[in-house]
Amino acid sequence: MNDIFGEIDAIFHSKSLAIYGVSRKGGLGNVLLQGFIDQEFPKIFIVNPKITEPNVEIMGIPVFSSLKSIGEPVDLAIISTHPKFVKDIIIECGQYGVKAVIIFSSGFGEKNEEGKKAENRLLKIAQKYQMRLVGPNCMGFYCPETGLSFFPALPRESGPLGFISQSGSIANIMAFNSMLKGIYFSKSISYGNSIDLGFNDFLEYLGHDLNTNLIACYIEGMSDGRRFIELVKNIKKPIIIWKVGSTAAGSNAAHSHTGSICGNDILWNTIFNQYGVIRVYNMEEMISMIQAFINPMPVRARRVAIISGPGGPAVSSADMCETNKLALADLTKDSKMKLKEIIPKFGSSVSNPIDISLQATFDPKLEKKTYEIVGNDPNVDMMFIYLTMLTPRYKDLIELQQKISKPIVLVSAIDVNVSPDCFSKEIKRSFIHIKAKKVPSIIKELNQNGISVHPNEDLASKALYNIYKHYNNLKKSISY
Amino acid sequence: MNDIFGEIDAIFHSKSLAIYGVSRKGGLGNVLLQGFIDQEFPKIFIVNPKITEPNVEIMGIPVFSSLKSIGEPVDLAIISTHPKFVKDIIIECGQYGVKAVIIFSSGFGEKNEEGKKAENRLLKIAQKYQMRLVGPNCMGFYCPETGLSFFPALPRESGPLGFISQSGSIANIMAFNSMLKGIYFSKSISYGNSIDLGFNDFLEYLGHDLNTNLIACYIEGMSDGRRFIELVKNIKKPIIIWKVGSTAAGSNAAHSHTGSICGNDILWNTIFNQYGVIRVYNMEEMISMIQAFINPMPVRARRVAIISGPGGPAVSSADMCETNKLALADLTKDSKMKLKEIIPKFGSSVSNPIDISLQATFDPKLEKKTYEIVGNDPNVDMMFIYLTMLTPRYKDLIELQQKISKPIVLVSAIDVNVSPDCFSKEIKRSFIHIKAKKVPSIIKELNQNGISVHPNEDLASKALYNIYKHYNNLKKSISY
Repeated sequence: MNDIFGEIDAIFHSKSLAIYGVSRKGGLGNVLLQGFIDQEFPKIFIVNPKITEPNVEIMGIPVFSSLKSIGEPVDLAIISTHPKFVKDIIIECGQYGVKAVIIFSSGFGEKNEEGKKAENRLLKIAQKYQMRLVGPNCMGFYCPETGLSFFPALPRESGPLGFISQSGSIANIMAFNSMLKGIYFSKSISYGNSIDLGFNDFLEYLGHDLNTNLIACYIEGMSDGRRFIELVKNIKKPIIIWKVGSTAAGSNAAHSHTGSICGNDILWNTIFNQYGVIRVYNMEEMISMIQAFINPMPVRARRVAIISGPGGPAVSSADMCETNKLALADLTKDSKMKLKEIIPKFGSSVSNPIDISLQATFDPKLEKKTYEIVGNDPNVDMMFIYLTMLTPRYKDLIELQQKISKPIVLVSAIDVNVSPDCFSKEIKRSFIHIKAKKVPSIIKELNQNGISVHPNEDLASKALYNIYKHYNNLKKSISY
Repeated sequence: MNDIFGEIDAIFHSKSLAIYGVSRKGGLGNVLLQGFIDQEFPKIFIVNPKITEPNVEIMGIPVFSSLKSIGEPVDLAIISTHPKFVKDIIIECGQYGVKAVIIFSSGFGEKNEEGKKAENRLLKIAQKYQMRLVGPNCMGFYCPETGLSFFPALPRESGPLGFISQSGSIANIMAFNSMLKGIYFSKSISYGNSIDLGFNDFLEYLGHDLNTNLIACYIEGMSDGRRFIELVKNIKKPIIIWKVGSTAAGSNAAHSHTGSICGNDILWNTIFNQYGVIRVYNMEEMISMIQAFINPMPVRARRVAIISGPGGPAVSSADMCETNKLALADLTKDSKMKLKEIIPKFGSSVSNPIDISLQATFDPKLEKKTYEIVGNDPNVDMMFIYLTMLTPRYKDLIELQQKISKPIVLVSAIDVNVSPDCFSKEIKRSFIHIKAKKVPSIIKELNQNGISVHPNEDLASKALYNIYKHYNNLKKSISY
C-alpha cells in the first residue's frame, strides 16, 4: 500500500461530483451525466457558466453557474467541454478544493505539439493545488460499487474484473460485451493521454484492490517500462493485456489516436512471456481469456480430455489442443471400460477425443455420465467440451466441477447469446435452448465454477494453456 | 458435364423415398424422417419389416413391411438401422430398382478392418445393380429446392452455397449456424466413409451445378489427391476448405472418426495456396469467409481504408490489416479536405485509419458522409469498417456499395445475433439496435451486396486479403 493506492481509491470513493459540459440542447456531457444518474451516484451538480438564472435543472440535476455557487464540498469534477475551456475550469476546481478532475475533452497531446504544451500547463496547475488528473481524451471511471460511470445503462452489478483502457470507447464497448457474457467489473478505468495518473498507477492500484481478482488492459503505448515490469513481477493476480500497435500501420494509428509510442513488439512479447502476462489481439479473445481467469482451477499438468457429440469438431479440437501446446490425455483402462458400457457402439469413440455420437442429443444422461467418468480420470488434468449449443445441462458440469476442480472449457458452436427467436419451435424443442436473457447469468455461474465458454476451438485451447502456464509461473515465484 | 454430374443430380432430384430405421418408439430414423416432412418432400414411404399389419402410419407417413409391398417406383432409399441389417436392405433396394442409397448407419470402415470388408461387400452389391451409394456413417443430402433433408426444421430457403462435409454433424451445425448469418444452401452433402460416391465426385458436381456460386468443405482426409488438384485447378468458383487433422493429435482423432488418413499438412497448404483454395480452421472462420465470397467485389489492389467510430479498434484493425498482408490506403488530399469539413475537430482523425470519434453515435449523417467520401476515393480499393453494433444505418452502406462496387468488411464488436432483450431500454434506444430475428435477412442483404460481417479484426482483414487473392489468382488462369 502506498500513496497512489490511497489517492486513486479516494477518487473511486468520491461522494460528490461537479460535471462541466452538460447543456440544455444535449451532447456528450449529458450522456456522461446520464451514466451517473443511472448508477444513482450520491450527489451530482452541473456547472455551466452560461446558465446564470437560479433553480435551473437539466435531466433532474441542479445547475450552477460556478463551483462557488454550489456552496458544498465537491470531491470530483468531470470536464466534457471544448478543450479551450479546460484550463480555467481546472483553476476553478483547484481553488475550490476539488480533489480530482477527470478530463473527458480531447484535442490535446494526441493532436499536436501545441496540445502537449497545453497538457503541461494543466498538470502544473493541478500540482499546485495537489489535485489529481485523469485524462484528457478519456472516459474516466466506472465503478458500480460507488456509482461512478462513463456511459448510460451500464450494469449496477459489481464483479471481479478490474479493467484499464487507454481508449475510452474500448472501455465502453467492453462493458457492454462483458455484460452479455456475465462478466462484471470491480472498476473500469479509461485513462486516455494520462498527463498525471497513468497506466502503471492504475495497474498498481488494481493489484492492491481487494475487490479485483483479475486485471485486463487495453494499451497502445507506455512511458515507464521499468515500473511496468516491476508491477507485473509482483502482482499475483492474472493480467490479460490487449496491446495494439504491433505493426507499423497499427503503431502509426495509435500515435494519432492517443499520441502513443507503441515500442518494439518483440520486446513486449518477451516481457509478457517472462512475467506470465496473457497477451490477446482483439476483444473476442480478451473476453475468452477473462472468462477463463474468473476462477481458474489450479492445474499441474496439461493432459486434456476432449469430449464432443459431433465427431468433426473433435478432430479440430484435437488439432487446436496440439497447436496450443497441450497434450491429449491417455484415459485409464478403467475409464475406457466404463465408457464402453454407456457409449453407443457405432459412430462413437472411447479414445480421446471422446466422441459420444449423435445419440447424446437424445439421451441427456449419456452426456452426464461421460463427463463424470472422464472428469474423474486421474490421467485427465483438464476438460475440453464441444457443444452444439448451451443447454440447461450445463448444471451437470457445475455439479461435476464441484467434485473434481479441474479447468473446463466449452466451445459452443452456435453463439451463446443467440435469441431462441431465431429458431423455429421445433429446433428450440430439440436443442432445449436457453433464453438469450438468461445466458449472461448462466455464463457467470459457469465462470465462477472454473468453466469458460468460447466461440471456437482455438480460443478454448488457448484458455486451457494459459491457465496451465499461469499456475506454472506462480510455482516459480511463490511457495506453492 | 459427365456421368458423375448426371448421376448425382438425379439423386438430388429424387421424387420418391423409402426410409429404413423409423420405428414406433422413435430414434434417429424418425429424426431424419421429420427433416423430409418439414421440407415437404414429394413422396415418402417407411419400410420396416417388423411392422406387418396393413395401413400403419408413423408421423403421418405410411409404413410398408418391404419395398415390394409399396408397389410404386422408389428413386432413393435411406438406411438408418443397425449396421447388421444394411447388407440385406441394399440387396432389396437393388432388386427393386432403387437408383441410389444413402447409408446413415455407422459401424463400418471407421471402426475396424471387419467394417472395411463389410463396406466392400456393400459396394459390390450396389455395383451389380448399378446403384449409387452415399456413406455409410453420413447424414446424406440437404437440398431445399427438391425437399431432401438430413435434420428437422432446416430452412426451406435456397441460397448460393454448396457445402460438402465428411462429418454429418458438421453439416448439420453448419446449416443452423449459417441460417443465423443469413447464409442459405443450394445443396449440402455429408458423405462420411464414401465407399462409392466421394468428396471429389461431389466437388466436381458442385463445380458444375448452376445453383451453386461458392463451395465450402469440411474434410479430414482424401483418397485421390491428383483428381482433387485437377478439380480445384478447373473450378472457378471460390472454394473454402476446413481441413482438419493438421496435427498428429488431430490426425489420430480423424482416423477413429471416419477412418481417414489426413496426410502431410505442408503438402495440403502448398496445394491450397497454389490453386487459390481458402483454408480455414474452425466454423467461425468458415462462416466469415463464406460471407465474404457470397458476392465478392472484383479488386485489383489491396489498399484498405479503415473507418472506426471507436479509436481503439482502429489501431488493432490497422495491426490486423498489416498482419494479413494488406496495405493502408493513402487518402487523396481532396478526400482529407472533405473529411476535415465534417469530422469533429477533436478525438478524431482524417488520416487512415479514419477515426470519426464518439460523435458518430449522435450524428448518423456523419457516418454516412464519411463512408461516401472514403468509398469514392480512387486510392481506396477496399473498406474495413469497425462498428460497435449493427444498426439500421447498414442501408447507407448498401446504397454506397451500389455506386462504388468495392469489397467492404464490417466488424461488429457486439455479436450481431444478440437479442436486444439482453440490453436495457436505454441502451436499445441509444444504439438503435436491430431485432435479433431480423439479423439473418440483413446480413444476407449485406452479403449479396459484397459486404460481410465479422466477429473480429483478424477475420475481417483475412476476408479482404482472400478476396484480393481470389481475383489475383483468377487473373493468372483466365483472361480477365
